[in-house]
Amino acid sequence: MDQPSGEFDLIARYFTRPARGAVLGVGDDCALLAPGAGMQLAVAADMLVEGRHFFAGTDPQALGHKALAVNLSDLAAMGAQPWAFLLALALPDADASWLAAFSAGMFALADAHGIELVGGDTTRGPRNLCITVLGQLPAGQALRRDAARAGDQLWVSGTPGDARLALGQLRGEWRIAGFDAALRARLERPTPRVALGLALRGVAHAAIDVSDGLLGDLGHLLRASGVGAEVDVDAIPASAPLAAQPSARRRDCQLAGGDDYELLFTAPADARDAVLRAADAAATPVACIGRIDAAPGLRLRDAAGAALHDTYASFDHFRRP
Amino acid sequence: MDQPSGEFDLIARYFTRPARGAVLGVGDDCALLAPGAGMQLAVAADMLVEGRHFFAGTDPQALGHKALAVNLSDLAAMGAQPWAFLLALALPDADASWLAAFSAGMFALADAHGIELVGGDTTRGPRNLCITVLGQLPAGQALRRDAARAGDQLWVSGTPGDARLALGQLRGEWRIAGFDAALRARLERPTPRVALGLALRGVAHAAIDVSDGLLGDLGHLLRASGVGAEVDVDAIPASAPLAAQPSARRRDCQLAGGDDYELLFTAPADARDAVLRAADAAATPVACIGRIDAAPGLRLRDAAGAALHDTYASFDHFRRP
Repeated sequence: MDQPSGEFDLIARYFTRPARGAVLGVGDDCALLAPGAGMQLAVAADMLVEGRHFFAGTDPQALGHKALAVNLSDLAAMGAQPWAFLLALALPDADASWLAAFSAGMFALADAHGIELVGGDTTRGPRNLCITVLGQLPAGQALRRDAARAGDQLWVSGTPGDARLALGQLRGEWRIAGFDAALRARLERPTPRVALGLALRGVAHAAIDVSDGLLGDLGHLLRASGVGAEVDVDAIPASAPLAAQPSARRRDCQLAGGDDYELLFTAPADARDAVLRAADAAATPVACIGRIDAAPGLRLRDAAGAALHDTYASFDHFRRP
Repeated sequence: MDQPSGEFDLIARYFTRPARGAVLGVGDDCALLAPGAGMQLAVAADMLVEGRHFFAGTDPQALGHKALAVNLSDLAAMGAQPWAFLLALALPDADASWLAAFSAGMFALADAHGIELVGGDTTRGPRNLCITVLGQLPAGQALRRDAARAGDQLWVSGTPGDARLALGQLRGEWRIAGFDAALRARLERPTPRVALGLALRGVAHAAIDVSDGLLGDLGHLLRASGVGAEVDVDAIPASAPLAAQPSARRRDCQLAGGDDYELLFTAPADARDAVLRAADAAATPVACIGRIDAAPGLRLRDAAGAALHDTYASFDHFRRP
């Protein structure tokens, strides 16, 4: 594959497509976008650094997917409709096959969500991917993390812990039976829960995506809302490979493992049926894993109702009262 | 100065201030912003990499200023009103004094433009600053780079070339008389020409900011607009230190030097007085340095009207017809 001749050739070859929704896309000093009448803008940025967020040598197509997926997950956690994104990219070299695979992975996910790349930057440097996403939502309908209320039920989508289980296998921390492409994809090609976030508008109170670990992210939500929670740790759904682990490892992956990009959300108890209908409409499994209390702090119980006092890694960030 | 205890402490200490214009600022999955009725959104991202865009050991306060300034310059070149920004930051360590100075430099410029930090990301890694800016402007009023027309006059703000002159001094390429803090600031603390961009709405046709070098950036504008230009190279205003250089070095700095963040723009000849009034209102000097022709390509002339045939570094990116 012939190599790009310079920055502008690189942008033209791999990152420029005709503008669709945008008034003006890639190629000017700024992109121009026309928000819908009465719509609010949701905006977030995530940076992925080689050696920190992904291994050197990671499949570039998977990386293109993941770099955009982690940003779409922030929109999902707000209940926003994805709209457009910008990519700032530092690369050690302009390698044509890497760029072709990376952009293919990124655009495949972008197309699946009907959004377009409208701008960004390309520069030489240690590999670093910074994506900014823009979404829209009707004013007042965002799923904010400060909106949990005592009495709410606590829900999670999917099977959190899979990404951590796959990471441990790839790092050589453990060797598990049944490690396959599907489990690896949970780490390398996470599914942003955009459809669920949209379906939960007007149903859920608060939401956050699980990026740093379930308990750590729950801690952010509880502190922002000024409430506490009780979590039934055995109610957290486990995938088959996770269910097959020793319970200490399973719980550690489920409670403290990051990179899942599942949605953790609260909804009033009387909205239980509406939550299940939203999950069904979004074709995304959800489970009720606890409840929100007025008393600050986080209480963990097993299926027998016994209190757990283990400390989980990401839980350290959460100060007990 | 005591060091931040972790990512969230770092964000709270140096990068969280109460939301002002934003519906929701730093601290949730996304920031929420409410665009004005009938307004379009202008958005751009720039990434600065240590060792490439700035020296290791650069004054962090100046760096905080510059990281935001280069982004504001993109809004200026579009004629957009700055609104908000996001910062994604990779740092080798969480050094309190570096962070305090960096954030002070960044927020001083943000405050001068009445804009606020609404989100971003913080991670460990080789030092890398990625800022995304958002601006607003009335629909249809953007100063696009594809809007130059044959017969337009070509204008530039300020004294381009100063940043390259200062860079050469700091790199040891030359030692110049009169190197002082003011000249160094032209490289390290560029002034985004936001007020000029706003004043030129409805007056200028096309605009671009000079980041890669005057001729290189002019080339982008000409190609986008499908026109050519004649530039009177001796009409480009020079600062006192630049005017004191041998003419070959002066021209090289003026025509090929990057990092100036001046505005290069075109306006109809009969808008000459309106351009001068806009510059006056924005307290920003401007000079007419040439004209736009229907014939593609770029023709350089000196004060005597003689054609110049030198090739300037950034000019290589521009394909002659």
